Amino acid sequence: MLTKDTICATATSSGVGAIGLIRISGDKTLAIVSSIFNKDLSNANTHTLHFGTIRDKNSNLIDEVLISVFREGKSYTGEESCEISFHGSPFIQQEITKLLIANGCRLAEPGEFTQRAFLNGKLDLSQAEAVADLIASQSKRTHEIALKQLRGKFSSELKELREKLINFASLVELELDFGEEDVEFADRTELAQLVSDVIAYIERLASSFELGNALKNGVPVAIVGAPNTGKSTLLNQLLGEDRAIVSDIAGTTRDVIEELINIDGIQFRLIDTAGIREGAADIEAMGIERTMTKIDQAKIVICLSDGTLEESISGVRAWTEKLQDENPYKSVFQVINKADLAKNDKPNAITISAQTGENIETLKAKLIEIVQGDYNFAEDTIVTNARHHQALIKTLDSLKKAKEGIDNQVSGDFIAMDIRQAMHHLGSITGDISTDDLLGNIFANFCIGK
Amino acid sequence: MLTKDTICATATSSGVGAIGLIRISGDKTLAIVSSIFNKDLSNANTHTLHFGTIRDKNSNLIDEVLISVFREGKSYTGEESCEISFHGSPFIQQEITKLLIANGCRLAEPGEFTQRAFLNGKLDLSQAEAVADLIASQSKRTHEIALKQLRGKFSSELKELREKLINFASLVELELDFGEEDVEFADRTELAQLVSDVIAYIERLASSFELGNALKNGVPVAIVGAPNTGKSTLLNQLLGEDRAIVSDIAGTTRDVIEELINIDGIQFRLIDTAGIREGAADIEAMGIERTMTKIDQAKIVICLSDGTLEESISGVRAWTEKLQDENPYKSVFQVINKADLAKNDKPNAITISAQTGENIETLKAKLIEIVQGDYNFAEDTIVTNARHHQALIKTLDSLKKAKEGIDNQVSGDFIAMDIRQAMHHLGSITGDISTDDLLGNIFANFCIGK
Repeated sequence: MLTKDTICATATSSGVGAIGLIRISGDKTLAIVSSIFNKDLSNANTHTLHFGTIRDKNSNLIDEVLISVFREGKSYTGEESCEISFHGSPFIQQEITKLLIANGCRLAEPGEFTQRAFLNGKLDLSQAEAVADLIASQSKRTHEIALKQLRGKFSSELKELREKLINFASLVELELDFGEEDVEFADRTELAQLVSDVIAYIERLASSFELGNALKNGVPVAIVGAPNTGKSTLLNQLLGEDRAIVSDIAGTTRDVIEELINIDGIQFRLIDTAGIREGAADIEAMGIERTMTKIDQAKIVICLSDGTLEESISGVRAWTEKLQDENPYKSVFQVINKADLAKNDKPNAITISAQTGENIETLKAKLIEIVQGDYNFAEDTIVTNARHHQALIKTLDSLKKAKEGIDNQVSGDFIAMDIRQAMHHLGSITGDISTDDLLGNIFANFCIGK
Repeated sequence: MLTKDTICATATSSGVGAIGLIRISGDKTLAIVSSIFNKDLSNANTHTLHFGTIRDKNSNLIDEVLISVFREGKSYTGEESCEISFHGSPFIQQEITKLLIANGCRLAEPGEFTQRAFLNGKLDLSQAEAVADLIASQSKRTHEIALKQLRGKFSSELKELREKLINFASLVELELDFGEEDVEFADRTELAQLVSDVIAYIERLASSFELGNALKNGVPVAIVGAPNTGKSTLLNQLLGEDRAIVSDIAGTTRDVIEELINIDGIQFRLIDTAGIREGAADIEAMGIERTMTKIDQAKIVICLSDGTLEESISGVRAWTEKLQDENPYKSVFQVINKADLAKNDKPNAITISAQTGENIETLKAKLIEIVQGDYNFAEDTIVTNARHHQALIKTLDSLKKAKEGIDNQVSGDFIAMDIRQAMHHLGSITGDISTDDLLGNIFANFCIGK
């Protein structure tokens, strides 16, 4: 994939649309495009648009098109590039692509345009990955995170961390040079503090992945409760009435097992709602196994009790506490329904009326609070990429070894080695350190044309 | 729809792609776009591209985009226009659209961009309709016809015809002015000849609609025959092996009732192939009713007989002739299969081996010949639009009345009226004559963003 071929690919989503776009990038772009276009674009200025016709080698007209020209250094890839905007029929797309290939283009691999942008220094790796995330983003929050990453916020944070580690490593290595003289350039206590700070920082980054991953894939929520506690009504309240009707229709033809809701830009996946809709999803009827599977898949478990029945409130409270104890990494909480019918207020639980909608906003706020934890979307970097998370974990391992070394007063060269190792892992995120395998892996997950 | 609002719409097909495009057109385009973009485009040159960021009113970044600028008179619609090229996520598309609307744009109706192009004299009606056909074209031939129409070939032919009729009408009307003097400016024999020529020309145009319509929707072909004559093998030969396997898999989950094949750029629809695949589609087993339904839907009927059985050859021959007599507007012909096993040559029928592929090309050529008739794709205008066909038929009616009038020596004013009527119908095709209702009707069938 690291050749200098001129590549082409359709960049718009497949299907019929008013307009389709084909992208071309590489040294021969303008020569190839000029050979099928009725105007010579070899001397066209960058960022200009040209209207004209594309014909095949027998002079048959293929389409009237608009071509954008980007000169080397001024394009997304950094290479000489064009975009051909055509009447969006799959037939025309196919004919233009065939012509480009006949004239010297090669079909681009998935992500090859962005890979070239990376190789030409237009983006670092984490920014390139953000492009794919941005395209896939379905909610305000994932969009926000991907865009921040694309704009280089994560990269600059990592750069800062690397610089701190480089300083640290240099000091330790300087000591080694003067080893015989038993000089201590670096104040060991200060160094230990520095490494601890970096560790804390990266730990926070690494643990934001749980949030990032949940945001990216939707936060799984299970609603459990005995029959007639109002699970179905609550579900409808959360989804909004209209949506519920639509889902009912869908449910007639296939088993709906998940519903998506978007609260404040965060996507939640309500698990196994088919059972709820059928009115059979009570804990006993479902059997303990199915309930447990449902809870296993969830990050948040809402245990619903009937506010008009004292035994339902206390029973579910006990069950909720037990479940939370057994699943420390999940958020399990009790919600007391039928507040409009219940006599007295129940503390330590959210009291709602699924029927009237009372306090539903409080429940939604609780869901947001759980997901967001102590992260601030406007300020904090949230890691959403599994590769980045892994690299951060490896960085942490090396840093912890270094810290141990400092604490145990081991020789400076061991400490320096661990620090170098940590820097290596950190560098792999932005691609300062990269291998062909790694690149192949990352860009293969892109869509064609990006 | 005839307002001067600034309109916007997504022009690329829906779904996730590397790039999405939003189109904006109208007087306030550059002002509105500048208000959400980080650069002022009010003085940007036409046909230039601008990279920058779009932010919402709270300064939240929405995306990094590329904006194309087209000044008034230099765009598709003829109005001041922009195209915003964004990272192809539905979320970003929605956010940018919301921003444009908040800043004064209105969502475009289907086809409104092309309608504006028509109203601003950039395209005539038949050209505008060709845009929709071009986007929908799935085969070489329909693409070719739509493109020719878009480029104005049909329009210029119609213009020529109208000019002839105008000359004719003027001469007749000139006579009327001098009516008292009994002058004959127009040689009646010559005039009769002229009208006859125009009638013949339009008749040919009108009857090309059968071909045009078949091309547009695919030419329906039925294969009928007794069990074991090789219908299924022939089907596979026509589809190509690989395709047949794929279809088999599809057939396991749903009833495949049609298969598409593309021969020399023309699309054929093989009707009711589900029966064939199941091996139960023999004439007797299917019952006479189902066979007849299948034949009713077809434009071409292939009657297959077993070349190794004399009674199959003669039986199918008799049946073919009867069917052709009863259906003069269909092409019904006999094909004798198992040529590789048959002893003697059978004239008056195409002899093939579906098993070995022998003479399949002859059969395909026969299909093409039937569809194409005496039309020449390179030269002749093929009418594909039902509205145009109707207008041509109405034109013919009026012209035939005029011809009758000439032949019967009726007064010139009646003849002139019929000719004017004919010109009116002819003019409605290109939109020289048009009403709001007509326009609404035409453009409502476009996709949004075109």
